[in-house]
Amino acid sequence: MNAPADLAHLTPDVHQRAVPQALLDALAARFGAQCSTAMAVRVQHGRDESAFTAVPPPAAVVFAESTQDVTDAVTLAGEYSVPVIPYGVGSSLEGHLLAVQGGISIDLMRMNRVLSINPEDLTVTVQPGVTRKQLNEEIKSTGLFFPIDPGADATIGGMSATRASGTNAVRYGTMRENVLALEVVTASGEVIRTGTRAKKSSAGYDLTRLFVGSEGTLGVITEITLKIYPLPEAISAAVCSFPSIEAAVRATIQTIQLGVPIARVELIDQNTVRMVNAYAKLGLREEPMLLMEFHGSPAGVKEQAETVQEIASEFGGKAFEWATTPEERTRLWTARHNAYFAAIQSKPGCRAISTDTCVPISRLADCLLDSVAEADASGIPYFLVGHVGDGNFHFGYLIDPEKPAERETAEALNHKLVTRALQLEGTCTGEHGVGLHKMDFLITEAGVGAVDMMRTIKRALDPKNIMNPGKIFSM
Amino acid sequence: MNAPADLAHLTPDVHQRAVPQALLDALAARFGAQCSTAMAVRVQHGRDESAFTAVPPPAAVVFAESTQDVTDAVTLAGEYSVPVIPYGVGSSLEGHLLAVQGGISIDLMRMNRVLSINPEDLTVTVQPGVTRKQLNEEIKSTGLFFPIDPGADATIGGMSATRASGTNAVRYGTMRENVLALEVVTASGEVIRTGTRAKKSSAGYDLTRLFVGSEGTLGVITEITLKIYPLPEAISAAVCSFPSIEAAVRATIQTIQLGVPIARVELIDQNTVRMVNAYAKLGLREEPMLLMEFHGSPAGVKEQAETVQEIASEFGGKAFEWATTPEERTRLWTARHNAYFAAIQSKPGCRAISTDTCVPISRLADCLLDSVAEADASGIPYFLVGHVGDGNFHFGYLIDPEKPAERETAEALNHKLVTRALQLEGTCTGEHGVGLHKMDFLITEAGVGAVDMMRTIKRALDPKNIMNPGKIFSM
Repeated sequence: MNAPADLAHLTPDVHQRAVPQALLDALAARFGAQCSTAMAVRVQHGRDESAFTAVPPPAAVVFAESTQDVTDAVTLAGEYSVPVIPYGVGSSLEGHLLAVQGGISIDLMRMNRVLSINPEDLTVTVQPGVTRKQLNEEIKSTGLFFPIDPGADATIGGMSATRASGTNAVRYGTMRENVLALEVVTASGEVIRTGTRAKKSSAGYDLTRLFVGSEGTLGVITEITLKIYPLPEAISAAVCSFPSIEAAVRATIQTIQLGVPIARVELIDQNTVRMVNAYAKLGLREEPMLLMEFHGSPAGVKEQAETVQEIASEFGGKAFEWATTPEERTRLWTARHNAYFAAIQSKPGCRAISTDTCVPISRLADCLLDSVAEADASGIPYFLVGHVGDGNFHFGYLIDPEKPAERETAEALNHKLVTRALQLEGTCTGEHGVGLHKMDFLITEAGVGAVDMMRTIKRALDPKNIMNPGKIFSM
Repeated sequence: MNAPADLAHLTPDVHQRAVPQALLDALAARFGAQCSTAMAVRVQHGRDESAFTAVPPPAAVVFAESTQDVTDAVTLAGEYSVPVIPYGVGSSLEGHLLAVQGGISIDLMRMNRVLSINPEDLTVTVQPGVTRKQLNEEIKSTGLFFPIDPGADATIGGMSATRASGTNAVRYGTMRENVLALEVVTASGEVIRTGTRAKKSSAGYDLTRLFVGSEGTLGVITEITLKIYPLPEAISAAVCSFPSIEAAVRATIQTIQLGVPIARVELIDQNTVRMVNAYAKLGLREEPMLLMEFHGSPAGVKEQAETVQEIASEFGGKAFEWATTPEERTRLWTARHNAYFAAIQSKPGCRAISTDTCVPISRLADCLLDSVAEADASGIPYFLVGHVGDGNFHFGYLIDPEKPAERETAEALNHKLVTRALQLEGTCTGEHGVGLHKMDFLITEAGVGAVDMMRTIKRALDPKNIMNPGKIFSM
């Protein structure tokens, strides 16, 4: 069966493979009540937060409770050359979870135990269904925290698979830097371990990094060992309004170039402030703003804050508002964390098409400002938020999914933005992954040769092409 | 032809393939004076700093001056299924450069240009033959520096290929964290680019990280984009003597666990202090010592130094000696940087068999102290230095290469040490790589399944097995 026309436009190679009744029978026999073919369950597992029109859902959902369950599900699927799609909370933004080639979904949310905490080594080992908020709750008493915060309360498995990052990455890095080791079920149903708890290693190919960001196309991640960090002695947060997006961006660039170890620096444009004010009654000035956070010793935080306040003033920053207690900080961060939902609510029935470009910091203003002008001219409402300290930002174009013209306009804006970002030596995706949405962009960015190398690796490690096929690249 | 007996003992699968005269003729025709078959040149390119008895040298050495040269050399070699071994300064420690399956060496030292410096983005792009000291010299005027310091003045290409790190890794990470993008000539002679200058990306498989640490077995690295850092506003260094190795190690563990952002913390045992005193007349107390360095703002450095001084005192640290000027710092660091050569000179004609285990910081004392006791009992002289903030340390067992019994004893010590490190959830190699020396250890550490996955990737990307074959794993 072919995909709907608008999806086919973006991903022409999708086609659904048959899922034989014999496989469904075998899954039912092995998994009993842990396997569902109820339509509501299947539909829920066949979509994500992207704006893709849903394709037919997976034929069954297996609720894995152990690595052995995953192994058995993958092995059975492999016997019938049927695709397997790992599923966490469904917060992917690029169509990662859509069953474009049919198959079964493996829901990993029941594998949600924190397996071990090693405070003295600053490591923790978790199952893939643990969410980042759950993890932080469970390790709170140790005085440690896991900083990676992509906004959604995503699972650690999903965050590993998409190489997620978010607001703290400017200081603490992304999943690339923070995953130490993995347990993975391969396409042949074998369980392998990559990496150890040592902080560094030169022991052979970096299989950990190969799986981090592989979007479920090489195997199912069943265990993750992460770095965690001491809760800073002092934390201070601030919002600061700027006369223009450009001023806010230039203040950010200078902060980064001076080497200030800022923990978070988030841009929110005036549209988004307005939406958030309407949604959460925050009463913020409806101007572009930076939300910042400083971590360190009391003296260190003070020093950083003073430096940044000076820089901000140079660029016309005003209405600096500080927060040092957890409650005040939470109030300030509400604006950022509610941005997505506030935007979606501002246009009832809409879906957001998210962009995710990331450019070298010196190119940030060039990349962002022209794209703002284009978005303003298009008439499509949008929100704009950015992890600007990393050169990464997101437009969310708010489209009516029933109006193909709006989608076309949004995709055209995205295309222009990505083209600009690549010219500026950046990437089409800083943290969301390729999924279905950016397969063509990936070829432009990486080149045919590099994408062919990815395909060669995929073919070697998954000869039946059963692991989340049709994502990252067509094959 | 088979390898010498003692090498065969460690790597039983070595065998040399024929290098047809037709290939040598073709290389001579293409490269003229850039290709040498002189025995002295070949011998120089067929060995490294490891203690392996040399195998027959490569049949020819191509001095590449451009990516095109590398492409042509690899393509010609590929036509005859002849191995290709990339060569930098020859400072590898694990037999990476030995032509165990015959073949040709590609010397990359003439590709030694810094191609672009982007101070505003904190990135630099270099050719593979640039050494780390050269790089720091060339970027000095920008106020930036490249922190990775493996001791030897290695090339950036070689450091990328072995996933090197060294003294600053505790603060700045390893080559894994500091390589942003690569240009690589693949086994088929194709040129690909991995990554962009963006600070983070989720664009497909992390090919950059796959090549970093691949030891020349997947392709030849011909260009590297690196992160660089602002020179700290303030730098302060200190040495501190301790009553025992255990005391020094426990002070280190506590420093790391408290989250002090120390830039360097190096252990030197009393043997090594004695050797360095003899070599460089430093007059240091012949006790275990920690060499430390703090980077940051003046206030930040002061704060860090005070904290560490308090911790050190708790563990009996004394004779704290501070250095803040570059000259004083250089004097203190002389001890560390001369350790290897001082040790080699302490036993004329000796070779060092280096260990490279790395364990979670909480296991460092357990791992190290038992191994010190074993080394002391063996009667083999040794030096001991460690990037202890990362849980990584090196014994250098000083053996007479003419006395197989000494080598056997050293390898037995190494075997016990690695076994212990793996039991403590560590790795057999923190930064030197696997090469020929640790292939068996890699299987124990990673498991047969993971090593088979590496082999599968190798086979897919290098079907003729011409890229530095016989390293990391047998095949």
